[in-house]
Parts: sequence; structure tokens; C-alpha cells
Amino acid sequence: MKKSMGAKTLVFPTPVWVVGTYDKGGKPNMMTVAWGGICCSMPPCVAVSLRKATYTYGSLMERKAFTVNVPSEVHCREADYIGIVSGKNTDKFAVTGLTPVRSEFVDAPYVGEFPLVLECQLIRTVEIGLHTQFIGEIKDVKADESVLGVDLDESVLGARGLPSMDKVKPILYAPEMGTYHAIGRNLGRAYSIGKTIGKKG
Amino acid sequence: MKKSMGAKTLVFPTPVWVVGTYDKGGKPNMMTVAWGGICCSMPPCVAVSLRKATYTYGSLMERKAFTVNVPSEVHCREADYIGIVSGKNTDKFAVTGLTPVRSEFVDAPYVGEFPLVLECQLIRTVEIGLHTQFIGEIKDVKADESVLGVDLDESVLGARGLPSMDKVKPILYAPEMGTYHAIGRNLGRAYSIGKTIGKKG
Repeated sequence: MKKSMGAKTLVFPTPVWVVGTYDKGGKPNMMTVAWGGICCSMPPCVAVSLRKATYTYGSLMERKAFTVNVPSEVHCREADYIGIVSGKNTDKFAVTGLTPVRSEFVDAPYVGEFPLVLECQLIRTVEIGLHTQFIGEIKDVKADESVLGVDLDESVLGARGLPSMDKVKPILYAPEMGTYHAIGRNLGRAYSIGKTIGKKG
Repeated sequence: MKKSMGAKTLVFPTPVWVVGTYDKGGKPNMMTVAWGGICCSMPPCVAVSLRKATYTYGSLMERKAFTVNVPSEVHCREADYIGIVSGKNTDKFAVTGLTPVRSEFVDAPYVGEFPLVLECQLIRTVEIGLHTQFIGEIKDVKADESVLGVDLDESVLGARGLPSMDKVKPILYAPEMGTYHAIGRNLGRAYSIGKTIGKKG
């Protein structure tokens, strides 16, 4: 029997991503978001939602570019901190000791210490309510050499040299509960493990 | 040193959600998506992106309503299957043995066996490219009694009776690698574990 929880933003999982921008004066800033996701394959696009009250909102409107940085679980405390304080009055890079690196393709800084980063050009804003959704075209993805590898099948995937979720160790957020989680064990290959369902053996 | 991976939809994690709709004849259908996320807190909204070629696309345009169903890891094979075959020529509920349940607030079916479901009214479509983004206002969230509980601190959270990520056990998807993962251990409380950063002890 299901119990009604009311109308709320309660779904699992949400990501923990850090959005990097330059402000209008060129100062690098970052903020943590859990409201976001991939929204198109061609062109490759990712969406993040921000409140107008955030310092990043103004920077993003000005610069039309952002990065999505995936912190590894070792940086969970920093990711939390980056979501608590405002770039308006705090240099979050200085306080955390994280390094802003100028992107190759867009006018935004990425976080040097985070293993997986996306350089995004703003292509659309969607006003929804408290949050505005920013849709960015992914111009490049960059990954640390140390997270490239294999999840399941080295013979197939190893040669591709792609980032592995087991090595990136992204953080998950549980809305309402307000907890962070690590990723867990591999459950199998997509477009594969379900193939036998409905097939007569 | 970061290595460029090119412009692709490569970010971790993405969710594994099953979108439920009725087609124009009233037949319940479902499809698996990994392109989606929460996009606004007020009104509470979730976005999912679908290709025009999917059967669900037409149903959603017709009915203006959908559910987001969070499968638990025990249903990983079913979730994969639901993403492989089309509702155009397959009754995925019949084949998987999952149960379509009429939503309370919107014109769409939810998956009875999945522990956490969102009933959503379509409020906006955003044409991006290969994918169209569907923004739904969350009219209600429903959860199985068995997943309500506590992640960290029973004294604070237990009384709230909210779904726990530890009990829902949602599935994660790793784009490009094409693997599914379980969630892992609790890493701490949001808006809390980062508070001491930058503070002089």
C-alpha cells in the first residue's frame, strides 16, 4: 500500500554537481546543485536549475557559459560547503583550496581536482517558478586519466578509455532526507541484462 | 592531467526512472529514461527527455500527464527491458508482470511494484534537438510504507516518515559505459558536513 507524501521534489537519486562560472568581473565561482540532468543527446545538452537569488545566476546570465563538475566522494564535505555559502561574499575556491582552471571551449572555470568536468555553452533558459532552468550544450567532457577504465568487461570497454563510475565515485543526494550517498556495486550492463525477459527459454 | 573526451552526454550519475503513460486508447505503457532530473522546487517539477520516435512521446502529447517511477535494484532487469522494447508493439506491463495502477491526481498509470512514484501534470515541453524535454509539475509523491524510514538520525528524521534512499535502493546509470549501479553507503548530512570548512578551530 502506497502512502501519499504530497507534492514535493522527492525522487531518487539526484546528482551532486558543482556548477562553475566567472562573474562579470572575471572572478571564478562555483555552487552545488542537485536539480539537473542530461536533457538531450544531439546536441549533447545538460540542464541545471538555479534560483534567481544565487550569485551564479547573474554570472551565468552574463557569461552564457558554465561547467558541470562531478566531485568524487572524497570531496563530499567541500561539495556540501560549496552549496552552503554564497560566492557573493566568499571566494569558495580560496577557502576550499580547490583550483579554478580556465575551460578550453567556454568562458567558465572548471574544478581542477574533480575527476569529471563538462564545458557547457548556455543555449536556453526556461523560467519555471522559483528555479530557472539553464540548458547548456556540452562542448567537451574532460576526465582525469586516473578515472578512465573499466566497469565490467575489460575486453570490450577497456580500449575505449572512458571514465568509469567505479573510479569517479560520484555523490548522490537524497532530497527531503537531505543525505549524501556513495555509489555502490555494479548491477549489470544496460541494453543487455533485460533482454531475456519475455523470451521463452 | 585531464583528457578530452569530446562533446558527449557523459556525466555521472544519471537516474534510472520509468515513465508511465496511457496511450490515446487508454492502454498503459512505460519506458525507461536516464535523461531527467528535478528542475524546480516551487512549483515542484521534474523533467524527462524523450525522443519523438518513442511511443511514450505521442501518449504524453495526447494525455499531458505522466508518472515517474523509481525502480528498486531488484527490478533492474525489468527496468532494462522496459528501455529496450517499444510499447507500440509490446504490452510491457503484461510481459514483465508489473501492475499498472491508475494515478490519483493525473491521467497516467504508475507502477505498483516500484517503491516511489511521482504523479506529474505536463506543464511545458522544450524542443532541444533529438530529445524533447517534458516538464511535469509533481502533483503527488507516493511511497511504499516499507521504504519509509531513516538514513542517519532516527531522532530527527524518523518521525517525518519520509522515504529513505537506503530502503528505496534506486538504480544509477553510467552513460557511455552503459552500466547500472546500486547506491552505496551514506556519506553524511547535507547542509551540515561542510559547515566546518574555512572555520578556524
